[in-house]
Amino acid sequence: MISKVKNAMSNLVGGMMPHGHHHHNNHHSGGGQTCGQDSLPPRFPYGRPDFLDLTPELLQYSTEHASRPVLALKRGSRLPWQTGYAEVINAGKSMLNEDQASCEKLFVKKPSGKHRNSTLVDDNGDGTGIPLQFWGVFDGHAGSGAAIMASKLLHRLIRDGLGEICHLLENPSSAPPICLAKNGSPYQAEAKKGATQEAEDPDAVCDSSVRFHMEKVVSLESLIMGVIETAFKQMDDLIEKEKTSYAISGGCCALAVIHLMGKLYVANSGDSRAIIIRNNEVIAMTNEFTPESERQRLQYLGFLRPELLGNEFTHIEFPRRIQHSELGKKMLYRDHTMTGWAYKTIVEDDLKFPLIYGEGKK
Amino acid sequence: MISKVKNAMSNLVGGMMPHGHHHHNNHHSGGGQTCGQDSLPPRFPYGRPDFLDLTPELLQYSTEHASRPVLALKRGSRLPWQTGYAEVINAGKSMLNEDQASCEKLFVKKPSGKHRNSTLVDDNGDGTGIPLQFWGVFDGHAGSGAAIMASKLLHRLIRDGLGEICHLLENPSSAPPICLAKNGSPYQAEAKKGATQEAEDPDAVCDSSVRFHMEKVVSLESLIMGVIETAFKQMDDLIEKEKTSYAISGGCCALAVIHLMGKLYVANSGDSRAIIIRNNEVIAMTNEFTPESERQRLQYLGFLRPELLGNEFTHIEFPRRIQHSELGKKMLYRDHTMTGWAYKTIVEDDLKFPLIYGEGKK
Repeated sequence: MISKVKNAMSNLVGGMMPHGHHHHNNHHSGGGQTCGQDSLPPRFPYGRPDFLDLTPELLQYSTEHASRPVLALKRGSRLPWQTGYAEVINAGKSMLNEDQASCEKLFVKKPSGKHRNSTLVDDNGDGTGIPLQFWGVFDGHAGSGAAIMASKLLHRLIRDGLGEICHLLENPSSAPPICLAKNGSPYQAEAKKGATQEAEDPDAVCDSSVRFHMEKVVSLESLIMGVIETAFKQMDDLIEKEKTSYAISGGCCALAVIHLMGKLYVANSGDSRAIIIRNNEVIAMTNEFTPESERQRLQYLGFLRPELLGNEFTHIEFPRRIQHSELGKKMLYRDHTMTGWAYKTIVEDDLKFPLIYGEGKK
Repeated sequence: MISKVKNAMSNLVGGMMPHGHHHHNNHHSGGGQTCGQDSLPPRFPYGRPDFLDLTPELLQYSTEHASRPVLALKRGSRLPWQTGYAEVINAGKSMLNEDQASCEKLFVKKPSGKHRNSTLVDDNGDGTGIPLQFWGVFDGHAGSGAAIMASKLLHRLIRDGLGEICHLLENPSSAPPICLAKNGSPYQAEAKKGATQEAEDPDAVCDSSVRFHMEKVVSLESLIMGVIETAFKQMDDLIEKEKTSYAISGGCCALAVIHLMGKLYVANSGDSRAIIIRNNEVIAMTNEFTPESERQRLQYLGFLRPELLGNEFTHIEFPRRIQHSELGKKMLYRDHTMTGWAYKTIVEDDLKFPLIYGEGKK
């Protein structure tokens, strides 16, 4: 074990550390799959957030579980919005710090042909466009790969999604049109004005008398929320896709705060929490996902798609693990439709590991 | 049409009115299935709540859409808890009043062999047991059958469910045991005391040293909530089962209020609302189910089980219906993961009727 750690540490300094190594052997239960992953290159090398600007020596120092040094911004360096930051590694739960953070200033602009759908474009570009300030924290679990990748790319996905609606952001006083032409220009608004048909759009209806019953009005803000929510999903899909070519270990919570056009947007998926402190009062800006808050949704999924439980889990919740000797007795349980509890007779299937277990952080 | 109504009215007075007839022919879109149902006998004859104690003449009078008489309790009759009640038929949306109500005093007691699982037992029995006061309102849709059946049986299902845990209700000071023996006695509590094995239970573990990590504590109140939630589900299952033998038309909202052992329990499924008025202040006790509140849950179901959409509906929400001429353009949409909106290119599948449409009552 010691030699393995030493070897990993020397790789680490060289920036080649494969993600997801742990002190505890029982974390290697992935077995063959983990070994297969190890032969793939990491998507991004292990490191701490860019804004800490660590030297290789400091990076190595940051992983010492015995001294647990607190890392903060370098003296004299400044982040936008007087952002503060400090981190410390855990007491030995994982060899590397699996959590990540990012703080980026970006510019939203119309996608140009060559940059379309490229998340590799420089963050700052040429400094033109609508400014966007992004903060993110990514609480990694069972490996640092997903958190590193999300900290490098989530803000770019959001920027690119906003770029697609850039022409709407530039006219914030008018509500977004329900329908756009293929080239992205406001189709319906044009049609209602009775404008001439767009050249690329031979089917355009120009009858300005068309009216729609129960048409919902959608605000620009909810369009921005839609971009952020979609980017979270795209980030997930991208990790899944790139896992075929790279070693991307673990998963992570994602908490993103975006300042755009005078408004602050906060999005969370997982068990972190954003707070605002004002006049010594703590205002929670997000709610954590916990086994309690997500129980019914996940049980419902397990109920509807039992094949996802892989014959290993039961979607029914019990107040504790059941022993084999209790078969045939009655145990308290909760199903996806219930907030209260009832008794059911224990059958063989109930001995499987419960999909929902524990209560999360307190 | 007139002769059909006349015929229905004469059937009504004879108590043989099949449920679910409407003035409007477009409500008969069920076609063959409805005709098939009509040949089955109704599960319960049409009527108004028992506590109104209407004569056949008053029952007929109650259905007059022109005069719309207000029905209230008979002079001199009293309901428990000074319960008040008044109803009036709609202005012609349906021929009969599809809504129902119930107000019942029941007694919870241990199930005896012959009465077990019988929802046909008299409500009052011999007046022994734990008293339970039940109020229910059932807002029927597309027929009165389901609302009538629920108003006759839901309180009995709740009473019988509580009867199964009667021995726990009788000892409210001790928390319900996690596990019961097959005969319903508190199994684990016995085992922890190291009592002798129960005769019918040869596998009983009597090792009092057995301790469970992360065992949840379940209150008696959450057990009562579990009974009520389970009864709602049982009511649904019973309607489905009896539809093979009886004509049970439509569906209904169910709002139940139960007073038991000094506490008031309120349960709702649908778009009714329970309120308490205190010092002229209105306190909402339930939240209605609306297309807005249930959107993501239903979209998620449609996404996970597309076969339930019958190739007729799309689980994606759009701000309005899409026209065929808009194929290939971009339309605002929301999927089950989103609270905000985004644009998607319209494909053939998006022309289907949306699963979520409209915003419910305002």
